[in-house]
Amino acid sequence: MTEHNVPESHPRHDSLLTRHRIEAGVEQGLTSKQGLIAEGRGEAFDYLLGEETIPSAAAAERVAAAYLVSADAPVLSVNGNVAALVPDEVVTLAETVDATLEVNLFNRTPERVSSIIKHLEAHGAANVLGADPTAHIPGLEHDRGKVAADGIATADVVVVPLEDGDRADALAEAGKTEIVIDLNPLSRSAQAAAVPIIDNIIRAIPAITAAAHDLLSTSNEMCSYLIEDFDPEQARHDAERRIRNGVSS
Amino acid sequence: MTEHNVPESHPRHDSLLTRHRIEAGVEQGLTSKQGLIAEGRGEAFDYLLGEETIPSAAAAERVAAAYLVSADAPVLSVNGNVAALVPDEVVTLAETVDATLEVNLFNRTPERVSSIIKHLEAHGAANVLGADPTAHIPGLEHDRGKVAADGIATADVVVVPLEDGDRADALAEAGKTEIVIDLNPLSRSAQAAAVPIIDNIIRAIPAITAAAHDLLSTSNEMCSYLIEDFDPEQARHDAERRIRNGVSS
Repeated sequence: MTEHNVPESHPRHDSLLTRHRIEAGVEQGLTSKQGLIAEGRGEAFDYLLGEETIPSAAAAERVAAAYLVSADAPVLSVNGNVAALVPDEVVTLAETVDATLEVNLFNRTPERVSSIIKHLEAHGAANVLGADPTAHIPGLEHDRGKVAADGIATADVVVVPLEDGDRADALAEAGKTEIVIDLNPLSRSAQAAAVPIIDNIIRAIPAITAAAHDLLSTSNEMCSYLIEDFDPEQARHDAERRIRNGVSS
Repeated sequence: MTEHNVPESHPRHDSLLTRHRIEAGVEQGLTSKQGLIAEGRGEAFDYLLGEETIPSAAAAERVAAAYLVSADAPVLSVNGNVAALVPDEVVTLAETVDATLEVNLFNRTPERVSSIIKHLEAHGAANVLGADPTAHIPGLEHDRGKVAADGIATADVVVVPLEDGDRADALAEAGKTEIVIDLNPLSRSAQAAAVPIIDNIIRAIPAITAAAHDLLSTSNEMCSYLIEDFDPEQARHDAERRIRNGVSS
């Protein structure tokens, strides 16, 4: 099967689509070895979640949209797996909430940053940051902490899908409102997040975009209400219960 | 950290060691893209198992040893991840139980078969089969079903660690007593196995070898007793309960 002939009705549709895209990402120089291993970890957790968006994740996706719609300077951080898995979807989300796209890699090489920027541009992005990161997030060693001065360094809300734990901690320490998409509710990234979204990124990003469209046509009070009503601890707990106890819980 | 400075006391010791070895396996041409993804899936399940050998897996490892010690023509099937993760350990197990080593790849290329054979030979193996597979397991398409005539084709007991579901089913159909090592108790391979070992291969292979040493110095009746007393369904169920309910179960 190729991506284009995985039937929507296939019981493992999301899993097969994800796998095809991540393997194509290796061919295109987007995905690293670490990225392939991370993809496998995600597959296992998604399998245990039933490969569907659980209600608490859908709620977290609406809250993420509320933060992004209300933000002054939102940034979507893109790494190799994000670019391989959801290039159209992150470009559409960035346009919808007027966010900046910034490439940030755990294993940074100029070649891979450049490949990812070109890939996003081929999918319609304009002005992707990350090729020249002159600022630095405190608490991280030199290369790990590099960010764009007009991107993450000055952002108030950052979406960091599939992020490393050290960086997720440092971004939270730096006062960013952090939205993490991660299938492991026990990961340090999910623990550090103001909004942990325990869902497959190929389901999560379109859901955030759809919720943002809804919120853009309602009052600011709705965003405030969603944000104040959200309990990240409860979201992590719900996902862990689902993983541990199965679909019946 | 490199493999040689992961301290034994590190709480994620097995996970880090596994990751280092699998990445080195890519550099050496042993591990494929699919192998990296499979490694990540294993990491997630091992994380949920508590990264330790649970009692039912330890029991399954003793039963595997009993089958191997009693077998007429046992074969250990080796793929890229097995070669990358436990080269010394599979060579030692093969010597201990007088088993044949055979390279079998889901994505077979002559180059990768040759790299794996050379890698095993560098770790002390003699006469590794798989370079010239002239026999065929029924029920599998051409390349997928190739096996060595004097190896898996005529084996009575086969150890297939980290095996694909279709092949595990076909080997069981062909009447082989199948010992599967797989961290997902719900996988088709684990379901097809006479002895499903739900454990990390880097813990499982040395445990089988240790149990085989014990059994070689006892009576044949002990092997028969272990084999007859074993319930594969119960082993899978115990592992699933541990994954679902956590270490407290």
